[in-house]
Amino acid sequence: MFSYNANVVSFSHALARFRSGKETPRAFLEQCIAAIESREAQVQAFAALNLEGARKAADAATERYRSGKPLSMVDGCPVGIKDIMDTRDLNTQMGSPAFAGWQPRYDAACVQALRTGGAVILGKTVTTAFACGASNKTTNPHDPLRTPGGSSSGSAASVGAGMVPAALGTQTQGSTLRPASYCGIVGFKPTHGVLTMQGVHPISLTNDHMGVLAGTLEDTWRIASHISLAHCNAAQPVLHRASDRLPRAARPKRLLRLYTGAWEKETDAATRDAFEEVLTRAARAGVEIASRDNDAAAAKLESLLTETFIEQCLGITAYEMKWPYQQYVELHGSLIEKRVHDRMAQAQAMTPADYAARLAARTTMCREIKRLMRGFDAIVTLAASGPAPVGLAHTGSRTFLVYATFLGLPAFSLPLMRVGDLPVGLQLIGAAGRDGTLCAHAHWMTQSLAT
Amino acid sequence: MFSYNANVVSFSHALARFRSGKETPRAFLEQCIAAIESREAQVQAFAALNLEGARKAADAATERYRSGKPLSMVDGCPVGIKDIMDTRDLNTQMGSPAFAGWQPRYDAACVQALRTGGAVILGKTVTTAFACGASNKTTNPHDPLRTPGGSSSGSAASVGAGMVPAALGTQTQGSTLRPASYCGIVGFKPTHGVLTMQGVHPISLTNDHMGVLAGTLEDTWRIASHISLAHCNAAQPVLHRASDRLPRAARPKRLLRLYTGAWEKETDAATRDAFEEVLTRAARAGVEIASRDNDAAAAKLESLLTETFIEQCLGITAYEMKWPYQQYVELHGSLIEKRVHDRMAQAQAMTPADYAARLAARTTMCREIKRLMRGFDAIVTLAASGPAPVGLAHTGSRTFLVYATFLGLPAFSLPLMRVGDLPVGLQLIGAAGRDGTLCAHAHWMTQSLAT
Repeated sequence: MFSYNANVVSFSHALARFRSGKETPRAFLEQCIAAIESREAQVQAFAALNLEGARKAADAATERYRSGKPLSMVDGCPVGIKDIMDTRDLNTQMGSPAFAGWQPRYDAACVQALRTGGAVILGKTVTTAFACGASNKTTNPHDPLRTPGGSSSGSAASVGAGMVPAALGTQTQGSTLRPASYCGIVGFKPTHGVLTMQGVHPISLTNDHMGVLAGTLEDTWRIASHISLAHCNAAQPVLHRASDRLPRAARPKRLLRLYTGAWEKETDAATRDAFEEVLTRAARAGVEIASRDNDAAAAKLESLLTETFIEQCLGITAYEMKWPYQQYVELHGSLIEKRVHDRMAQAQAMTPADYAARLAARTTMCREIKRLMRGFDAIVTLAASGPAPVGLAHTGSRTFLVYATFLGLPAFSLPLMRVGDLPVGLQLIGAAGRDGTLCAHAHWMTQSLAT
Repeated sequence: MFSYNANVVSFSHALARFRSGKETPRAFLEQCIAAIESREAQVQAFAALNLEGARKAADAATERYRSGKPLSMVDGCPVGIKDIMDTRDLNTQMGSPAFAGWQPRYDAACVQALRTGGAVILGKTVTTAFACGASNKTTNPHDPLRTPGGSSSGSAASVGAGMVPAALGTQTQGSTLRPASYCGIVGFKPTHGVLTMQGVHPISLTNDHMGVLAGTLEDTWRIASHISLAHCNAAQPVLHRASDRLPRAARPKRLLRLYTGAWEKETDAATRDAFEEVLTRAARAGVEIASRDNDAAAAKLESLLTETFIEQCLGITAYEMKWPYQQYVELHGSLIEKRVHDRMAQAQAMTPADYAARLAARTTMCREIKRLMRGFDAIVTLAASGPAPVGLAHTGSRTFLVYATFLGLPAFSLPLMRVGDLPVGLQLIGAAGRDGTLCAHAHWMTQSLAT
């Protein structure tokens, strides 16, 4: 097994031992529970745990492997579920006092897919309020004084601390890849719409993405593939190359190196050096790296991804937040953060025509970016402006992440860099609907570029 | 005011009196409550009522009209909400014992739109189980021994009995237009996707439609327009010609008269006569009526709308029902009807490729139907195979209704016929996305063809 983070556990790796009888899902779960017992007091990744239910589910999985009949490619896999996803056996509190003690009636579609496939729903992971608000209690597993990133804070931290091999997150700006970067794990945000959001608390219909966080690329792909195959529909096409096998590693021929406005403004020298060093290794392995400095298409693409575009997309988010946030603002007042109140004020001032104009501008942008990306296998950039910042009040910068999100493009954060003792993720962004191709390149990079 | 049913009340008509101070929303509400007190024991349209909350909301609306500042085009309009739509102040029980006593945390998007606009949420209307299952307790306001139709049984019956001017329903096969036909009111199912289903219990993502039921076309259009303007988004484009004013009446030049397989199999002589009579009146007023008997495009279209196509679409429904019905079947066993168990068995046997093939076939069909409809202003057919059948066990035939539903086309049921003492609806089906144009034709028909 290739692993970038000594703490993480791999379900895909354990599977061979389950099949041969050398290990059991129950024993694997106990290893996760031991990590929780040892580290949770400090990391605080979970909003709720269901040890009894998990043990029961793991025992059932153990029986199925014994009789050679696992239910699916995730049977027996312990998972953490972000606490904005409905779970029928655990409170779903949205990281907000407005939902204290809330118990949904049934599982979100993603949870149903996992549970039906025999996965072990171990607990609910801490989220910032409604996945768009204030930081919560979770700390970074690499340094308790630092943020784990957010909004999928507990999902990333639980995986980074080896408490679960994988967890579900979401991303509306940077909420999956940013915490993955800070916690030294793999984060995957598929093409918009590919993984079902049914039963997940919404922020913004056209910007919300399901995300998968895992210790290894194999587990990331396995979980995403399973959910997709269990719950595709007309609005949620099947994940490209969904499979229990990782797409074969494929070296990209040409990568577009993206700076974004954050490069000069936000990164420090050590992070820039670490990034340059990875790119140097890639170049040495035969990958051509193009950038605004030497390629017209790259320069043009770089020039389009501006603060103005971000602002335009945030207007879309505000407008789409009207349901249900308008009610929260009315009903809960100061329990809801000022930034949500502000977004609602912005939305109220917009007409359907304003909204439609922003959507149309984004569609034009998507088409233009698609055209500019044609000569490249993927875009490569940072997944965060550096290692996790000190302090728990903020979950870090979104600047490197929002573009792929707002454009709906598939993106991975790969834990290929260290700055000091802390992880930093390399972000790989692909063409819409070509998630499997992107994963094949991510596979090659994790194999070939790790130090 | 033009009215086809002596019992119904019109909000649009009352509005002028609200504005002039001759009547108040509170007095209008009391008229609705009086109708409920007089008829609810027999009709049983409501699963829950909130008289206190409604009176408070009507008083607030009264104040706003007094000061000349109504909140929206629906301010002060009493409405019934189908009991599969989340309401934060009333139980939402889905017509199923599996959801007995269930209290959602916040309003569905459609309810939020109405409440925020000052509409008076008077109560929850009875639905068949999950809008796809067994009949419930509601009776037909024209004859208590007959079904009101379903699944939006209480929505149609409450409007038909004059308890509310309008109510929300849904349609996945025939659940809005069928009860509208049986209860002698207007039913409108817009183009698929136009009205938000967020916060409404799902059956089938690509077949579920929000529906509006009202005593008059004016109120139907007003409610639909308000919801659409309050909650459009990328997946829910604004209703074509949404406005507080009904699109100006426009005589259709050519109508395609559709028989469907139900014409010979299900209709009786009296219903056929009533339908022919309406068409004769239309022809006399200058509308050309084409059919399979005299027009090649009509014959071709008729030949495509078969049981085979229905079966294909029901497979799509089954597959899309996996979430959350798979959980209901597992958790609630015999509390869930056999037909839902059967659909789940069908879905389990389908692969994503089977599902995709059915979707693709439907897309091809939609394209072909669109082409064949080009020479016509609308399709005209029955909205039900006759008047409401005697008995409460079944909610009636779907055969005249499923095609517009599965094709996602806008459709109205207009109460333009009577068979004996019972109403039968004329169904008018338009081109996708041209709801306003269809409404203009519906407007002309209600003005020109009523007896």
